[in-house]
Amino acid sequence: MRVAATSGEAREIAGVEYKPWHWAPDFSEWEINPNASYLHYCSNETIGGVEYSELPDKTEIGANGVPLILDTSSHFLARNWDLNKIDMMYAGAQKNAGPAGITIMVVRRELLGKCQATCPDVFNYKNVAEANSCFNTPPTYSIYVAGLVFKWLLSQGGLAVIEQKNKVKAELLYDYIDSTGFYHNFVEPTKRSIMNVPFVTGDDALDAKFLTGAKELGLLNLKGHKSVGGMRASIYNAMPLEGVQALVDYMKEFERQNG
Amino acid sequence: MRVAATSGEAREIAGVEYKPWHWAPDFSEWEINPNASYLHYCSNETIGGVEYSELPDKTEIGANGVPLILDTSSHFLARNWDLNKIDMMYAGAQKNAGPAGITIMVVRRELLGKCQATCPDVFNYKNVAEANSCFNTPPTYSIYVAGLVFKWLLSQGGLAVIEQKNKVKAELLYDYIDSTGFYHNFVEPTKRSIMNVPFVTGDDALDAKFLTGAKELGLLNLKGHKSVGGMRASIYNAMPLEGVQALVDYMKEFERQNG
Repeated sequence: MRVAATSGEAREIAGVEYKPWHWAPDFSEWEINPNASYLHYCSNETIGGVEYSELPDKTEIGANGVPLILDTSSHFLARNWDLNKIDMMYAGAQKNAGPAGITIMVVRRELLGKCQATCPDVFNYKNVAEANSCFNTPPTYSIYVAGLVFKWLLSQGGLAVIEQKNKVKAELLYDYIDSTGFYHNFVEPTKRSIMNVPFVTGDDALDAKFLTGAKELGLLNLKGHKSVGGMRASIYNAMPLEGVQALVDYMKEFERQNG
Repeated sequence: MRVAATSGEAREIAGVEYKPWHWAPDFSEWEINPNASYLHYCSNETIGGVEYSELPDKTEIGANGVPLILDTSSHFLARNWDLNKIDMMYAGAQKNAGPAGITIMVVRRELLGKCQATCPDVFNYKNVAEANSCFNTPPTYSIYVAGLVFKWLLSQGGLAVIEQKNKVKAELLYDYIDSTGFYHNFVEPTKRSIMNVPFVTGDDALDAKFLTGAKELGLLNLKGHKSVGGMRASIYNAMPLEGVQALVDYMKEFERQNG
């Protein structure tokens, strides 16, 4: 909203809600302005763990002729999407692609250069595309590492295989959470992220004890975002199924001792 | 010029010239508009090898009250300057500070937030400063490496020592070039860069032969920028005096065989 608001008139047509369930409206509920310059949404929200698992059909949602722009940062390369359904996509590399400091842009050719006159040259992707991504000095090391990650993804079987693996990992964790009355995830089931899985015991002191014990076992970075607290397992592409299984094993043992 | 031109009225008051000598006007020759929103210049030009070795005195040049903004990318950390003389400075890390992909900004507090309404949030340095440089996800690895470089600079004795070393390296190379009629550097002597030293033999075929022979000896990246040709020695902080001496030794031998 902020970006749009600095450069034109912006209208929020859908938003994540947090009470009582973390929730985001289905595409069919979006009130789309068919004359909008563009429609932007974030397809995976890392703090609440809310995700749109599919891409919308622009005709079905009444957005034909409206460029569809996605922030896919936190599940880029995690799903095997048909990018023909969207017009522009961007993703910070630091979740699934490589070191922080590089952003991957995918832009439909027809949109290149369609920016406002006050747009800084480096954000005018016509310039960037024409210069083969070397319009300014590119972050060479980050590009090199991202290249290694792309090769690794291909060696795994590509995005179709990766998406399947991610679903299996997420299912293992959500199924366990749902099977207990001890842990809780608040996301509406059809909008649960396969990358970011927040959960709580409902008792702050117990959450803190959980995190201390996890750390001792080498189960790291499980603290929930500071704005919501609790726990959050970020199970990006690089996390193997064995890592999720180790977390579930610890959760079971922690529940047995504290439940 | 381009950045200023997209967001307001821009006026060029001084520029590098390339014929017959590479040259940039002294500060005293700048025709400064005392009502300008800011005055911007690039203090080291890497292609032509033209550098301002000192910072101007704003009172002396009639720029009191005009924020002075410098692009110091290619000699950042090479000179021991009093930053109180300027109002804002920026530098891409990739010359003397670390891997490409991070830019260091130094901004006087009073200037923070004084940007146009259409300025993207990430370029509004008030946001960046308030968030302790974590307004967006920072390039963590690049910051880590830059930190190692800063520690190395301190272990060398800091910028005063580094500047002295850089002057000695540059003098060795310029003195040799000036002592021959075989190699030529076209920069007006008071504006010669201590970082980027372009030179030519005056014969394109001989320049090509020079570069091939240099490469065989492990003297790398000596090709001049594609827009000007010839040779260019970039003798950044990381280049030891021994490296410059090895280049001069090869230049002498090449002249003996081809002069």
